[in-house]
Amino acid sequence: MAKAESNVSDGLTLELIRESLIRQEDTIVFSLIERARFPLNSPTYDKSYASSVPGSGGSLVEFIVKQTEAIQAKAGRYENPEEHPFFPDNLPPSQVPPQKNPEVLHPAAMSVNINKIIWDMYFNELLPLFVTPGDDGNYASTAARDLECLQALSRRIHYGKLVAEVKFRDERKDYEPAIRAQDRDTLINLLTFARVEEAVKKRVEKKAMTFGQEVTLGDDGNKGKYKVNPAIVSRLYGDWVIPLTKDVEVEYLLHRLD
Amino acid sequence: MAKAESNVSDGLTLELIRESLIRQEDTIVFSLIERARFPLNSPTYDKSYASSVPGSGGSLVEFIVKQTEAIQAKAGRYENPEEHPFFPDNLPPSQVPPQKNPEVLHPAAMSVNINKIIWDMYFNELLPLFVTPGDDGNYASTAARDLECLQALSRRIHYGKLVAEVKFRDERKDYEPAIRAQDRDTLINLLTFARVEEAVKKRVEKKAMTFGQEVTLGDDGNKGKYKVNPAIVSRLYGDWVIPLTKDVEVEYLLHRLD
Repeated sequence: MAKAESNVSDGLTLELIRESLIRQEDTIVFSLIERARFPLNSPTYDKSYASSVPGSGGSLVEFIVKQTEAIQAKAGRYENPEEHPFFPDNLPPSQVPPQKNPEVLHPAAMSVNINKIIWDMYFNELLPLFVTPGDDGNYASTAARDLECLQALSRRIHYGKLVAEVKFRDERKDYEPAIRAQDRDTLINLLTFARVEEAVKKRVEKKAMTFGQEVTLGDDGNKGKYKVNPAIVSRLYGDWVIPLTKDVEVEYLLHRLD
Repeated sequence: MAKAESNVSDGLTLELIRESLIRQEDTIVFSLIERARFPLNSPTYDKSYASSVPGSGGSLVEFIVKQTEAIQAKAGRYENPEEHPFFPDNLPPSQVPPQKNPEVLHPAAMSVNINKIIWDMYFNELLPLFVTPGDDGNYASTAARDLECLQALSRRIHYGKLVAEVKFRDERKDYEPAIRAQDRDTLINLLTFARVEEAVKKRVEKKAMTFGQEVTLGDDGNKGKYKVNPAIVSRLYGDWVIPLTKDVEVEYLLHRLD
């Protein structure tokens, strides 16, 4: 299990990528359930609330994400090509010995980062769907949970680079003409498997039911009550994760022959 | 759900505390499963590896925990009496508007922080039991996952202060003589309910099975394979979480009449 989760160091295979994508579903569902422990807590997202925090210049969640990313950058997090910062500007360099990450991706991968879109989707569309309204005052903890959700979604969606690379290698003769023609529609069609997408949506819904249930000793009448609505997790994948992954795949592929 | 998870703002009741303790079990199990995505990654804990990181002076995990706690402190995390830092010395003050946290605990609660013991237990005893050996190079992410485990365990164990307070209020005539006599053994006896402890251990084991299973569409032969060994989660509670919670309860009660 740990092997599939590590860097794809021993050759890129569809099987390793598939295992990682499936494992990442668990992480995403866990992170949503953990965020749902807290109500909306709107001051977390309100610039005026955080105005007294030096160097914030934005909301409390911006402060927490920016500062935590800076620490993790020093610790080498973003040396791993699977990780993408939300605030890449002025990020401090890694201060740990360099890793020998295998170069499986085309260098064009470096320039693909759609975290701005993921950020807006998460706060403007997803978050209000799965947390209760209200305010319990735990804004710092709330922002830490948001960071976990954002990082899990970002990693999953940017994994599209690896998906695209392995599909490109496997069916180079199909992809090359579309890339040369910079034909997004054909690339989208090549990357779309409706049956697989439906299965993913069903599986994440089942995961939300399994991981979000109240587990008690003995059978009880708690069935059907979940910490995060499973239909919303299915919708998260159908409306955002899958389409945004394809956006990453297409952006990557358009430059694959540069 | 969110209500029970918030500060105990509307009166301390055993029912609210119980709900929170049960909900915190899920958080602990999730955090262990997420840590188990990575192998041991021993450089994360090795002082020489992090020697090039300014201000670390210790291991990479120490750097990540210390620095992340400093950010969260500025954002007000430790204004909540349920949260306890692992590195309380030189923690920056909160820079957000003060919360009106209700004073449910005796002021003596402030001085009870056993995170040093939790830290040693986690790294020296628990961690080697539930992660695979090996090294995949993801040390920054590994340390971030350790922080999540540590914070979840610390919050659960220090919740003993609230448990002790509500038990004290409910059975003041039993507790007062033991407190005046500073009689730890009698306090431990008053706080021990073997039947409840057995039920907790069984429930967390069941949670590890439920949340750590491989969820697939359709029935499959994957039963009995878990991301974290359920017996170890049961042992975590039996050997460490429950006894350490009682240590917190006793330390708190010994000063309850100061």
